[in-house]
Amino acid sequence: MIQPTSLLEKLQIEFDGHSYGDAPVELYEPITYIMSLGGKRFRPLLTLLAASIFDTDIKKALKPAMAVEVFHNFTLMHDDIMDRAPLRRGMPTVHEKWDANTAILSGDVMLIRAYDLLLDVAQDKLRAVLNRFNQTAAEVCEGQQLDMNFETRWDVTEEEYIGMIRLKTSVLLGFALELGGMIAGADEETTKLLYSAGENMGIGFQLKDDLLDVYGDPAKFGKQVGGDIIANKKTFLLIEALSKAEGSLKTELDHWISLETFDNAEKVAAVTGIYDALGIRTFTEHKINEYFSRGMASLQQLRTDSVQKEVLLQFVEQLVAREK
Amino acid sequence: MIQPTSLLEKLQIEFDGHSYGDAPVELYEPITYIMSLGGKRFRPLLTLLAASIFDTDIKKALKPAMAVEVFHNFTLMHDDIMDRAPLRRGMPTVHEKWDANTAILSGDVMLIRAYDLLLDVAQDKLRAVLNRFNQTAAEVCEGQQLDMNFETRWDVTEEEYIGMIRLKTSVLLGFALELGGMIAGADEETTKLLYSAGENMGIGFQLKDDLLDVYGDPAKFGKQVGGDIIANKKTFLLIEALSKAEGSLKTELDHWISLETFDNAEKVAAVTGIYDALGIRTFTEHKINEYFSRGMASLQQLRTDSVQKEVLLQFVEQLVAREK
Repeated sequence: MIQPTSLLEKLQIEFDGHSYGDAPVELYEPITYIMSLGGKRFRPLLTLLAASIFDTDIKKALKPAMAVEVFHNFTLMHDDIMDRAPLRRGMPTVHEKWDANTAILSGDVMLIRAYDLLLDVAQDKLRAVLNRFNQTAAEVCEGQQLDMNFETRWDVTEEEYIGMIRLKTSVLLGFALELGGMIAGADEETTKLLYSAGENMGIGFQLKDDLLDVYGDPAKFGKQVGGDIIANKKTFLLIEALSKAEGSLKTELDHWISLETFDNAEKVAAVTGIYDALGIRTFTEHKINEYFSRGMASLQQLRTDSVQKEVLLQFVEQLVAREK
Repeated sequence: MIQPTSLLEKLQIEFDGHSYGDAPVELYEPITYIMSLGGKRFRPLLTLLAASIFDTDIKKALKPAMAVEVFHNFTLMHDDIMDRAPLRRGMPTVHEKWDANTAILSGDVMLIRAYDLLLDVAQDKLRAVLNRFNQTAAEVCEGQQLDMNFETRWDVTEEEYIGMIRLKTSVLLGFALELGGMIAGADEETTKLLYSAGENMGIGFQLKDDLLDVYGDPAKFGKQVGGDIIANKKTFLLIEALSKAEGSLKTELDHWISLETFDNAEKVAAVTGIYDALGIRTFTEHKINEYFSRGMASLQQLRTDSVQKEVLLQFVEQLVAREK
């Protein structure tokens, strides 16, 4: 049996020994920097875990798994410019530590380096893998564009929101799992199940992020509880509240949203109160469970006797249970 | 015999019928916009001309050739943000017409779409083509970084400058030619000659750009003659002048460079006078001829009986003779 911790170690050794390029240093230093900020690396882990179900030699999945993580960090580097984010994992973002030009150009090279890592895939699978990666990568950009579009809209529907997070977050989790299957020689029915699992779990994870921002345990959450409420961020909870609120609740919600100056704690308490009154918490929890169940069901359906299927299921269950 | 005009027509039909994506429109409209601004499309033409020497069926080179042009326009979109350029081919740049975020994200998708187009290459050549493309693409980014680094340095050597323009401009011309050869099944010796031809010609083209900015015929040049002098742009001519000037010429050159306010015509006349006194024009012309000769020599060495070799040679000679 290959445990996630063992795969994570292998992955870390591979990352530590990997060079993204040397000169000019101004171009490559920011890449080493963002990759060194860590993160849970759970996308490449999903690739390795999926591969381990169908082929115990996970070496051939290592570099493609890294490609997924490098691509993910490329999107973070560029998204942080667009979102004017000052911090990433508690450290200055690349465009803050250096400047926007650096973050644009280093990000571009990261995307190219992700393709480099994907070229490690065997000849007979290369075109199929790249086809799926290209589609996924373009969809992630489409999701980011929709996310930015939604910032100035107040009529975003639940369906539109789910569609956006599917593109921005979920398709890459789907691809991470699918990629593992493809590399290990799984058949098409299987890789489709893997993709569908990641796609549904990903939507669940994002909805859970939205939920924890409001209802997370401050001791465990790591971030400021209510940050999304303070920033009027269009989360699943706010979108539901906007569509469900009527009468005085609607007036109250509109009031808090339109205020330009306010006491943070007061706004968080008031909007949370509105969510409570509308039953948004329970509604969101049901949605999350719905997507997680769909994802787990796809994994359960995988036809294999491999003990690694259990390892993947347990790993995903842990992710589902997380509270930060 | 297949003439460049006929290849250009085929290319235009392919571009006209090509979709980069539909939704969200905010993401894809800027791509259609920048691709519609035109340009001479001479990079994809080089690919098609090189391919036509070794395989008269140029259809299989069309999409890969487009990839080169889409990649080139991706670099323009991102470079224009970094350089704060207001205009591109006489029209507003994407970050001016929309905003920087749009130019970042649409550029990212263009890079992905370039890879999509490259996937049209036959299975047995795909890895080699992508390997070479990845290297070229990263080098172009390295060249842009060096170009930005040079903006704040006054001790850039001739060697460093040539190294920078090689990366920023030439390697893509080299790859454009090499790609045509690879797709058409040319052997490695041949594809190396094609690459070397593009690499050397590219350096020649950039040096000629630098020269024409100062010594171009205003009636033919299209841009303001002396624009680089006015902006203190570190061209080949300025770098040579800075290294060659002594005594009163050095004092005079330093004076004009350090002035914050000046009469444009006066500065252009004065700096041109210094270039004249230092023999910079002749020196630069010799360099240009040196690189063009090397490039043409590589093309001459191509071992083939194909009449298309002559067509490529003539096309390149036209490019060399251009005065704008």
